[in-house]
Amino acid sequence: MLNKALVIGITESMLEQPFWTRIESQISELKFVAKESPEIMQELPSVDCLLINFGIEIKKEHIDLAPNLKYIGILATAFGKVDVAYAKEKGITVTHLPGYSTESVAEFTIAAILEQIRGLHEGKERGKTGNYSEAGMKAMEIRGKKFGVIGLGSIGTRVAEIAQGFGAHVQYWSQHRKPEQEAKGIKYTELNELLGSSDFISINLAQAAETEGMFGSKQFNLLKKGVLIINTAPMELINIEALGAALTKGGLTFILDHSDEMSQEDLTFLSKWDDCVIYPPIAYITEEARVAKQEMFTNNLEGFVSGNPINTLKD
Amino acid sequence: MLNKALVIGITESMLEQPFWTRIESQISELKFVAKESPEIMQELPSVDCLLINFGIEIKKEHIDLAPNLKYIGILATAFGKVDVAYAKEKGITVTHLPGYSTESVAEFTIAAILEQIRGLHEGKERGKTGNYSEAGMKAMEIRGKKFGVIGLGSIGTRVAEIAQGFGAHVQYWSQHRKPEQEAKGIKYTELNELLGSSDFISINLAQAAETEGMFGSKQFNLLKKGVLIINTAPMELINIEALGAALTKGGLTFILDHSDEMSQEDLTFLSKWDDCVIYPPIAYITEEARVAKQEMFTNNLEGFVSGNPINTLKD
Repeated sequence: MLNKALVIGITESMLEQPFWTRIESQISELKFVAKESPEIMQELPSVDCLLINFGIEIKKEHIDLAPNLKYIGILATAFGKVDVAYAKEKGITVTHLPGYSTESVAEFTIAAILEQIRGLHEGKERGKTGNYSEAGMKAMEIRGKKFGVIGLGSIGTRVAEIAQGFGAHVQYWSQHRKPEQEAKGIKYTELNELLGSSDFISINLAQAAETEGMFGSKQFNLLKKGVLIINTAPMELINIEALGAALTKGGLTFILDHSDEMSQEDLTFLSKWDDCVIYPPIAYITEEARVAKQEMFTNNLEGFVSGNPINTLKD
Repeated sequence: MLNKALVIGITESMLEQPFWTRIESQISELKFVAKESPEIMQELPSVDCLLINFGIEIKKEHIDLAPNLKYIGILATAFGKVDVAYAKEKGITVTHLPGYSTESVAEFTIAAILEQIRGLHEGKERGKTGNYSEAGMKAMEIRGKKFGVIGLGSIGTRVAEIAQGFGAHVQYWSQHRKPEQEAKGIKYTELNELLGSSDFISINLAQAAETEGMFGSKQFNLLKKGVLIINTAPMELINIEALGAALTKGGLTFILDHSDEMSQEDLTFLSKWDDCVIYPPIAYITEEARVAKQEMFTNNLEGFVSGNPINTLKD
């Protein structure tokens, strides 16, 4: 049992009541504050638990203010702006939500590709207006095409497996080789070769110093004519100006799932091209992911209180 | 080498020039006529070959008028209105185009399901108008759901395999058991049980006396609430009035790929329901299918002329 939790940037509506009931049975008192509230500094000395949303800053100075702090539960996959190294040094358990939206994002990736290559938007519009002619519509298949996955983590692996089900020739590039996936026929390919030979490319890399801006004019110039790229990873991986130049040149369709991190300027810039399809951030919003997120967040807390912590920071 | 072909209901623009060149190298003379042209009866006595589009009627009386007829090539998967039994009796070879659009239709099936359950139409509309909010949008996953395939022929089998790639629990009902597919984990299920337990249902039966109208009020009443049905098979399988009643009752989404065979009356009737999605006939229109269709049609003719007929009527 924990004494007092400071809940930062998570409102009551973000979790359903049964989850709050379970959380309240593990913690005597919950204090809700908004992101960047001045109350945070005041409350830290008296809490032994932090429950925080994605992007909340927990730095050394915050941790030093909270001598009783034992547990930080993050309502997100990424550790974000938590100084996990310092927390660890202080013996604080930090948990996160790995993989709750893996399937949601992987299925969205394939869904958005199919929507594009089958002209479903146009088809649905025609049907709605009583025009049942297919005249002028074009379509292509995934089967038999080269399907490149860049970044073979949990989402990339599921994208690759589903693409294999369609009969695509799946190739991948990742920072580390994945022998287990290679044994299933997912072929390792050098990045430049993958860029130059793939008909479809799914970008599934995490954002890090070495991946930011890694897709620039050199990479876009290597692409096969007619390629479709879908990026469900952060747009920080893409040099926006180089993407614009590639879209102007033509022969490229680029689909993205817009996250809050993109600037309005970049959005306005990219929306100039019909071949750039910008979705609201709907890749991760399945009902299954929404429930799994709350379940995992609650399980993490229960695991810690019962002495069996799960989903903690790996060394 | 054949002497003279009567080409019925196929215009020159339906096949690309290289295919016509190959066809012309097998037949001395081609005579093009429209469907139901009065010239058909006049030409039959002088031809040894018929090249016909889908739905062209070739009855006993036509065959009796053509004593030299050796070959009927149909530009379609189904034999349609050709009296194949009588043709066979007369020693005439009849060829068709099995499976040229299998992959095209199977991928469309999954595409249209994903489009629906991920709200892609709405998402794309929002993006196009600069609204990047996901507020109010809902989505679900295929993974872990019961996916029923009714009719496990070539298309149904591919739909089942792709659904397995998504991690669905795939069950099927077909007029004949398919041990090979069952060994791959596609579970045989009685039709009523399949209807009552599936979250997704793909109808992939051929139209025949015993399948026409087989989905009536009894079948619709068995369905699980929230089910999504997609029918890429002929709508003759469905009792339209019973479908309307089920849509009124609610808890059912029905997607169809409209074929020319549907009456305007039925289309107007079904378009009353938002939960009934009517696409133009775009399931089979991939570029791959378009090329394969022409290739197979030409190969069939070449096979016959060289003495190795392929894709003929099976006994």
